[in-house]
Amino acid sequence: MAVQEENPKQKLENLANGIVKDIEGGKNPTFTTYARKRSNIVYDQKGGYLKLGKTKEERDFINVAQSKRFMQTIAVASKCHKFVKENLHTTIRGLYYQLKFSLGEDVDENIFSEQAESNPLIEDLEVSLDLTRENLNLNANRKGVLAGNMKVMDRFGDEMVEIDCSKQGRSGWAIPSDVDNDIQFVDVKAKYVIVVEKDALWQRLNEDRFWKKENVILITPQGQAARGTRRLIRKLADKGLPIYVFTDSDAWGWYIYWTIKTGSINLAHIGGEVATPEAHFIGVTMSDLDKYEFLNKLTMNATEVDLKRAQEMLNYEWIRKNKAWVVELERMIKSKKKLEQDALQGPRLTFVGEYIKEKVANKDYLP
Amino acid sequence: MAVQEENPKQKLENLANGIVKDIEGGKNPTFTTYARKRSNIVYDQKGGYLKLGKTKEERDFINVAQSKRFMQTIAVASKCHKFVKENLHTTIRGLYYQLKFSLGEDVDENIFSEQAESNPLIEDLEVSLDLTRENLNLNANRKGVLAGNMKVMDRFGDEMVEIDCSKQGRSGWAIPSDVDNDIQFVDVKAKYVIVVEKDALWQRLNEDRFWKKENVILITPQGQAARGTRRLIRKLADKGLPIYVFTDSDAWGWYIYWTIKTGSINLAHIGGEVATPEAHFIGVTMSDLDKYEFLNKLTMNATEVDLKRAQEMLNYEWIRKNKAWVVELERMIKSKKKLEQDALQGPRLTFVGEYIKEKVANKDYLP
Repeated sequence: MAVQEENPKQKLENLANGIVKDIEGGKNPTFTTYARKRSNIVYDQKGGYLKLGKTKEERDFINVAQSKRFMQTIAVASKCHKFVKENLHTTIRGLYYQLKFSLGEDVDENIFSEQAESNPLIEDLEVSLDLTRENLNLNANRKGVLAGNMKVMDRFGDEMVEIDCSKQGRSGWAIPSDVDNDIQFVDVKAKYVIVVEKDALWQRLNEDRFWKKENVILITPQGQAARGTRRLIRKLADKGLPIYVFTDSDAWGWYIYWTIKTGSINLAHIGGEVATPEAHFIGVTMSDLDKYEFLNKLTMNATEVDLKRAQEMLNYEWIRKNKAWVVELERMIKSKKKLEQDALQGPRLTFVGEYIKEKVANKDYLP
Repeated sequence: MAVQEENPKQKLENLANGIVKDIEGGKNPTFTTYARKRSNIVYDQKGGYLKLGKTKEERDFINVAQSKRFMQTIAVASKCHKFVKENLHTTIRGLYYQLKFSLGEDVDENIFSEQAESNPLIEDLEVSLDLTRENLNLNANRKGVLAGNMKVMDRFGDEMVEIDCSKQGRSGWAIPSDVDNDIQFVDVKAKYVIVVEKDALWQRLNEDRFWKKENVILITPQGQAARGTRRLIRKLADKGLPIYVFTDSDAWGWYIYWTIKTGSINLAHIGGEVATPEAHFIGVTMSDLDKYEFLNKLTMNATEVDLKRAQEMLNYEWIRKNKAWVVELERMIKSKKKLEQDALQGPRLTFVGEYIKEKVANKDYLP
């Protein structure tokens, strides 16, 4: 993702040139990608993340069932090539409107009737050309905030601007959609990274100057992590920083953790680049109820979703072989209780930071 | 909100001292607030925003039906007093957990069983003491991003940090929950403020350096505006900057606009402080279909929600008397079509900025 032997523009041109060559040579042009259906998504045992399997899909131009999709794919590639050449970015929605507006100088055909048609073709291109959306100048939703001793050199037009993530006051640095191109992370000085599910708790820790006192990088994905945030966590892990994830002890919190750690089905095609299998789960855990007596007063009732999800997780082989997680999940199922990270503020607002320090010092986390 | 004759700590102490005095004097302590029910929310014709009416609500301590709520209110006031004294912030959820944990040194009673009990009491206190949540050190959700020629002096622990909103690269400055306390806006140099519904379009305009070339303040609330963002827009209007709102032409876009402009029912108790009646609606509008031919290709079907909302809006007196809005709404109802701001990217990605410039130059906006 970060390092490209060929640049995206070149790859798109190679694709187009290949097709032209086929046509000129009297051959039927084809386009090959990997299947992104569920049956072709595999868990990489060694790597510890979800990735695409080896089932290929081929599309022929001279094939009644496939030629429209073939044409659409080329139209998407052509628009992306234009964006890359112009050095301008948009979203997959912006791309769709460009496709609706006009397919090119000579084509007045309206071959897209809804965005659901163009979206999968972008993924086809990503997989086929070993590129990402970001390489095609298509921004994803962004979400997530960071504070810590780290500087970012980011592009703004023709200039590079330096952003000091230790000087962002209450706000923190908003993590962009693309953390690979035209951006550099320099002066990253920290003992570890702590990823806090909720922005409210991030603000609490930021106010306590937790990241400054402890010299850590403090991130909140603000719920489920967007791809930019997941990619940034991966990059920080690549710099050798331990990654600790801190969420609620409930279905949603676990989902956030496992998505950061093993990736997700819809991003399996870039699995290795957004997953951080080295991540640890620091809490809150059901077993915190034994360690912190007061939390017993502050539990909530687990919902049906929580209980169902806990049961499902017990069926995953990579969780089943992991005793500490089995104990956690069974405890929720048996007690029908769950626990929020916000509850740590019960005794005093500053307890949240004390909790993290203690957990890290005692290596008291789940794999 | 911004200027307090008495500080929040003093106000909370006055409340408590009054109650103690009543008890010592053999009187039944009471607590007075304004009713926040729908029937007490009025549209201020002159000011142009939603506010609370004059119906008062009184709570007695010696009254079986009211004494629990009275006690709970005092518990909330006591916790907020502690937060203000400690100079630490939390959320209404954090407050709830503190109330659950313990009510104080001598009280072991658990008088809160869910957060729905403490939330309205916070508003009671706000209204009764003429304070805001932010004055009580309770953060709200934050959302919204800004770029432009403006500097922010923001508190981080004991230091004030300077944030230059023209040097935030792709990210922009994340607008905090509280833009009144411990924060200052200096060097605000801009011709006007443009508020863009979608972050995707904000990123588009930011990449084009629209705010720099045009010398404007570029804000996205990222959908419905959070209270911090609404308050900031109000404050920028107070500095004399014109405010232009740019959303989709659909039910949700209009709702975002009218909330910024007239406030909302749930914030009627601070209506004048978060509403910006001076705001104008710049687009996209249904009448853009006459001005920009290509948009006719890029409309979407209006949903049932859109049509129902358009019909409702036609019933509001402040809209009915406004011909341009009536034309807009009737056009959607008749054509059953709507339009997204993203569609402006159809002809070329940079068209979004051209559109705004043209609209502002021609004063082509709705009131």
